Amino acid sequence: MVKINPNFLKLQGNYLFAEIARFVKEYTEANPDKKVIKLGIGDVTEPLNPTVIAGLNEGVAEMSRRETFQGYPPYEGFDFVREAIAKNDFADRGINISKDEIFVSTGAKEDTANFQELFSTDMRIAITDPVYPVYLDTNVMSGRGGDFANGRYTNVTYLDCNAENNFIPAIPTGKVDIIYLCFPNNPTGQVATKAQLTKWVEYAKANNALILFDAAYEAFIREPDIPHSIFEIPGARECAVEFRSLSKTAGFTGTRFAYTIIPNDVMITDETGAKHQLNKIWVRRQATKFNGVSYIIQKGAAAVFTSEGQIQVKKTIDYYLENTKIIGAGLSKLGISYTGGKNSPYIWLKTPNNMGSWEFFHKLLNEANVVGTPGVGFGKCGEGYFRLTGFGARANIEEAMERFAKLKF
Amino acid sequence: MVKINPNFLKLQGNYLFAEIARFVKEYTEANPDKKVIKLGIGDVTEPLNPTVIAGLNEGVAEMSRRETFQGYPPYEGFDFVREAIAKNDFADRGINISKDEIFVSTGAKEDTANFQELFSTDMRIAITDPVYPVYLDTNVMSGRGGDFANGRYTNVTYLDCNAENNFIPAIPTGKVDIIYLCFPNNPTGQVATKAQLTKWVEYAKANNALILFDAAYEAFIREPDIPHSIFEIPGARECAVEFRSLSKTAGFTGTRFAYTIIPNDVMITDETGAKHQLNKIWVRRQATKFNGVSYIIQKGAAAVFTSEGQIQVKKTIDYYLENTKIIGAGLSKLGISYTGGKNSPYIWLKTPNNMGSWEFFHKLLNEANVVGTPGVGFGKCGEGYFRLTGFGARANIEEAMERFAKLKF
Repeated sequence: MVKINPNFLKLQGNYLFAEIARFVKEYTEANPDKKVIKLGIGDVTEPLNPTVIAGLNEGVAEMSRRETFQGYPPYEGFDFVREAIAKNDFADRGINISKDEIFVSTGAKEDTANFQELFSTDMRIAITDPVYPVYLDTNVMSGRGGDFANGRYTNVTYLDCNAENNFIPAIPTGKVDIIYLCFPNNPTGQVATKAQLTKWVEYAKANNALILFDAAYEAFIREPDIPHSIFEIPGARECAVEFRSLSKTAGFTGTRFAYTIIPNDVMITDETGAKHQLNKIWVRRQATKFNGVSYIIQKGAAAVFTSEGQIQVKKTIDYYLENTKIIGAGLSKLGISYTGGKNSPYIWLKTPNNMGSWEFFHKLLNEANVVGTPGVGFGKCGEGYFRLTGFGARANIEEAMERFAKLKF
Repeated sequence: MVKINPNFLKLQGNYLFAEIARFVKEYTEANPDKKVIKLGIGDVTEPLNPTVIAGLNEGVAEMSRRETFQGYPPYEGFDFVREAIAKNDFADRGINISKDEIFVSTGAKEDTANFQELFSTDMRIAITDPVYPVYLDTNVMSGRGGDFANGRYTNVTYLDCNAENNFIPAIPTGKVDIIYLCFPNNPTGQVATKAQLTKWVEYAKANNALILFDAAYEAFIREPDIPHSIFEIPGARECAVEFRSLSKTAGFTGTRFAYTIIPNDVMITDETGAKHQLNKIWVRRQATKFNGVSYIIQKGAAAVFTSEGQIQVKKTIDYYLENTKIIGAGLSKLGISYTGGKNSPYIWLKTPNNMGSWEFFHKLLNEANVVGTPGVGFGKCGEGYFRLTGFGARANIEEAMERFAKLKF
């Protein structure tokens, strides 16, 4: 008899963003005349830049001619894009990452979701709270959650992030095996300093733990001393993997391209104590379960890393950062406190009058027709918080803040 | 301490096609003057057809303008492509499959690899031998293999396919939970009749088993009575899932688009005996681990299902089928027996003088500079067999058969 994976039944509710989409759909169907402004899922709104469009067009044209047609792509990605990444993201910043340590994919969501497959199910994972739900849910689906009690999974180590610690998690006192970190953070928008990340690398090395570092928002960093990559920290090549994405960097949420960095120096252990190169285990996983990224999309992605592409990418991100400034200024005027927004597209605000996150969500949707993300959807510590994003057309951002100002609490 | 998933260590050797690629690379690097003809991995060679190119170009153009720009795609795919699939592949053939039973993805490899995640690890799987390695390897990686002894995993039910049963597997005498079937078959090229598939559906219903049906090659079927879909069989809506792909249908190996059909009628059981709709479990999996297929690629895919697209697709497949005829005629002349090739791009040949599959692979590579796939790479029953494909430029196919004719055995 065919039976369900029992770990799937341990998931609590639906996937957060699917849930929000459902509420918004219900509201818009019931109120077709209302103009809803979405500052929720964190989806980009500016079109792909001209350099990327040229790369995509070239890719399509090549696929139309027998001489330049491309069949199955390499599992790990074409050399032309991996070399461009190695140079632009790492060598140009003085970081030592080679082409064969870079693996392309269709999304950082997919990579952060799939990566846990490489590890034994008895690994103890540590996540921040609040956290991007994919890290937690995918581990629960693989049996690393344990039971769910008092709003938390018993086998997971939660690292609280709150106003008291300025949304920077403390190093755990006990032992954990796999640590998920995300800076600039989703959802809080907080960034980590070199000194803070150094402590994590020291912890990982001392405990033979692995850091899974999500750098999906690094392109929003504008302050000069904030690290863009975990590999700016000495020793990280031995204990960290990094996830990167063009979704927010270059507006690829609907185009789909991401990449994962696995240094050749990261070794993990089997039950006999023998060591295995993590990079090669991912190669085996990808060769068996993945057939690579569309040639056309890889052509578009490679264009992002050209000097012209980089100028255009920066311009679009500056636009979104100006939006976050407007949101931040609007909130400050209303006396609402927040973090993030400076080196990140996210604004993490404290709800007025300690309103519950979902209560605030529904009030904002119903009374201001603005969609945001309830903080509690990212974890227990997110209760009483709410996430807004700077993605959107300027006029919409301004209108959203005007509507905000009219809300009565 | 971070430890490897011990099931990964149970995999035998490397992924088959990665292994072949390595041998070919070694040979071509050592012999840069030789022209190697690849009839191995089963990769298409004809360019994308003009209707698909127009769809892709339209998609790229829309991504360049704010008004038509697309962010995150729906996890399950855009309605425009799912509706086109429902009509073209199913309604037009009198099969009842609705849009909400169709889920798009970047590849049938990915879908067949990921689908097993939905089930309990103690499920007993049945696979044919020979088999597309992804079905087996992904179950081994999830712990459903058991030990490896005498060339087989102890917890897997193997359904032998050989000359004696005309490469059609017998229904198992014992109970299995999940059955992987692929028709037209990879690697043997054999097709299944309605009567044969009906027996499988009856078995699945009687045993509360699930059929995972891989129809990646259905577009090659030319004989009128051969089913193109498992859903042509009464009762299959309650016990089957079907995987489809544009890779071989429309030359999308390098473009990446596939889709999976999960009828709303398929229910699976949990440990308490309660029933769950399989369709909704896949929705939860995809929402958590996948962010959809590129808008641009979905535009290209939708073009395949237009009437113009269908005419062009048929023309290209006719070209490949003519290639398989040439290969078949060449083999017959040499007295080499084979199956497949008529409703399939694959030719499954018996090696001359009972030569071992890998021995034949190296002989063919070294002496004729032709790449094929060793039958034993698909399973024990494939020993002494070898797979060739009709994908390739006509001149290459003809040259490959001329070189073949000169081999001394």
